[in-house]
Amino acid sequence: MSEPAPNTYIPATAPVRHERDARGVHRLTLDQPQAFNVLSEAALTQLQCHLDAIAADEGARAVVIAAEGKAFSAGHDLKQMKAKPELGYYQRLFAQCTRVMLSIQRLPVPVIARVQGLATAAGCQLVAQCDLAVAVDSARFGVNGIDVGLFCATPSVPLVRNIAPKVAMEMLLTGGFISAAEAQARGLVNHAVPAERLDDTVEALLAAILAKPRQAVAMGKQLFYQQRELGVEAAYQLAGQTMACNMVLDVAQEGVQAFIDKREPTWRTPPR
Amino acid sequence: MSEPAPNTYIPATAPVRHERDARGVHRLTLDQPQAFNVLSEAALTQLQCHLDAIAADEGARAVVIAAEGKAFSAGHDLKQMKAKPELGYYQRLFAQCTRVMLSIQRLPVPVIARVQGLATAAGCQLVAQCDLAVAVDSARFGVNGIDVGLFCATPSVPLVRNIAPKVAMEMLLTGGFISAAEAQARGLVNHAVPAERLDDTVEALLAAILAKPRQAVAMGKQLFYQQRELGVEAAYQLAGQTMACNMVLDVAQEGVQAFIDKREPTWRTPPR
Amino acid sequence: MSEPAPNTYIPATAPVRHERDARGVHRLTLDQPQAFNVLSEAALTQLQCHLDAIAADEGARAVVIAAEGKAFSAGHDLKQMKAKPELGYYQRLFAQCTRVMLSIQRLPVPVIARVQGLATAAGCQLVAQCDLAVAVDSARFGVNGIDVGLFCATPSVPLVRNIAPKVAMEMLLTGGFISAAEAQARGLVNHAVPAERLDDTVEALLAAILAKPRQAVAMGKQLFYQQRELGVEAAYQLAGQTMACNMVLDVAQEGVQAFIDKREPTWRTPPR
Repeated sequence: MSEPAPNTYIPATAPVRHERDARGVHRLTLDQPQAFNVLSEAALTQLQCHLDAIAADEGARAVVIAAEGKAFSAGHDLKQMKAKPELGYYQRLFAQCTRVMLSIQRLPVPVIARVQGLATAAGCQLVAQCDLAVAVDSARFGVNGIDVGLFCATPSVPLVRNIAPKVAMEMLLTGGFISAAEAQARGLVNHAVPAERLDDTVEALLAAILAKPRQAVAMGKQLFYQQRELGVEAAYQLAGQTMACNMVLDVAQEGVQAFIDKREPTWRTPPR
Repeated sequence: MSEPAPNTYIPATAPVRHERDARGVHRLTLDQPQAFNVLSEAALTQLQCHLDAIAADEGARAVVIAAEGKAFSAGHDLKQMKAKPELGYYQRLFAQCTRVMLSIQRLPVPVIARVQGLATAAGCQLVAQCDLAVAVDSARFGVNGIDVGLFCATPSVPLVRNIAPKVAMEMLLTGGFISAAEAQARGLVNHAVPAERLDDTVEALLAAILAKPRQAVAMGKQLFYQQRELGVEAAYQLAGQTMACNMVLDVAQEGVQAFIDKREPTWRTPPR
Repeated sequence: MSEPAPNTYIPATAPVRHERDARGVHRLTLDQPQAFNVLSEAALTQLQCHLDAIAADEGARAVVIAAEGKAFSAGHDLKQMKAKPELGYYQRLFAQCTRVMLSIQRLPVPVIARVQGLATAAGCQLVAQCDLAVAVDSARFGVNGIDVGLFCATPSVPLVRNIAPKVAMEMLLTGGFISAAEAQARGLVNHAVPAERLDDTVEALLAAILAKPRQAVAMGKQLFYQQRELGVEAAYQLAGQTMACNMVLDVAQEGVQAFIDKREPTWRTPPR
């Protein structure tokens, strides 16, 4: 039974735009600026669909999650949520959102958030969940569900795994925002840059990642998140096995030989 | 069998002063400035007594832990400890102190440390254990038990859950202090402010918290500490369930409806 | 059966130089500057040998890990690794390296990295694994194995236990370096200082540690790493037991009595 092409069921007015360049860089753009790029059911379904397709794309090398308009994302679609006040619905909705978030972590390629504006609630969660994040210096970050009586429980999961707990707690309890500069200092984003340098900074990260072999990056990313949850001894055990397996790969054997020979490895993407 | 009122057995010269305002803000003030507000057995007993009473106060909204005099707290009462050199006594004493610390974490309302001066050993632990902390910019923080040959083992528990391990280790091994500014940069306190802004900063946090529904704050605080100890997948599972349960609460339904209607939710405390 | 003196089998041209001063401070110096102090099999074997000997030295009080030349350490010896392209060999090599790293953590005395230059891959891991680290302000830190197709899996273990995950991930994925100042701000090193202050800063840490009783430091260091891997309740349980056991030691009884008497404890090393 053949599977449908991943984008088959996505309507023309899709909340998430998808592009893939010749290098294998996938770009997912939240494209409902008038709705502050809310993570509606439709948006989450599409994100999941694209992430699944990217997971199956053996030529994929990286993902950029971007957004149109002034906001990066305002999180869940409160209007949609209010229309169906049932526990079972909310359980399914948060499970759907969690599946998207975990798919980002499980993807064999790095995922970079390109944050051009305000990221709130599940929008901030999305930034926290990405492997890397670059923000414009005017961006702000909040997990302010508590302002409407809904504590940002799921956003708190990646948040407290990225920044100091008291800073996270203040954001969660008060609904207050932090600046891009503070997000950078605290570890929520890698770089906070002027708007005109946003794309260059994302591109520099992409170029660096594209210059590495896909297999080693995939093994490394998976190992990183797995070992982090273990005690230090088990973590080292797993990391040592992973690194030994990485080292017998052709890419590492060639990379190391090239280093010894003071030449570029054959797998190195030529500099742009 | 009726329980005694919580403060019944507290003498007039109590080491911990307790106030509660009409908003449900409890203020616990360490009130033995001449003794640097040591956490003696009596002080720990009283803190526990007050924390238990606050846990039972359904109108409680927040707790501020403050102190009189130049020091916030110098930690355990070394004179008292020296007087009873028995392993069993020390085990009971640290268990008593731990119960106070865990009671802070388990309280359904946020606990803010108001740090007006030096916080050392278990005094620093108390700051680290609170959900939020505001310090005067002249405050300093140390876990310097090692200076008398007693490694600050229990203080290291919340400390390393708040700040980078090498910074914690240096404090623990050398007995050295960090400034309020460094404590703020490292995540041990939320804000380091001039003395004249200390109360305003605490009050701003309180006002923000009081403007949220108690139920959502209680669910969120509990979830925050529970999920933090889990692997990311289990953490998301628990957080999703919590958030779904939060969303069916009247406060969230009303809060979200108010957001849609562009009005204040009925449960919002009017701005002061 | 008598054990051989620890250094018996170490050749004169050893990659690791060892000194011990009268205070019990061991200094291990990576001494192959022309090879950027790679952690070859021989170097790892020697480090292990010295660490085992230090573990058995009841007069040991601290360890400094230093290096000669411009680089601190460039990590594994890629030439040596390339010469034996077998999974079993790599597994043994990473297991050997892990044993060295865990020996540092398990040593009853604090280990300070003295970082006089570039620390890359397993060289950066060595810095991260030490209890404390002081770097010259011109030092840089990277985990750039990915540049040759080998993700720095084992270095990622202590790295992500010291610094924010997105910063670690960027270093691991891009092979990029961070400055000593950033390493200090992020928590990878305790101090970043001008070259002329490097030794004084290490010495100040040593002096502070030497002024504490060895037993209390040993109990505390072990507790610190154990409790960190536990949930907060189990962590407090273990810490409370440890602290009670510490308190009944003669050194703590004397230290506390000296504090009460406003005098120096008898075990205090006189100030230099």
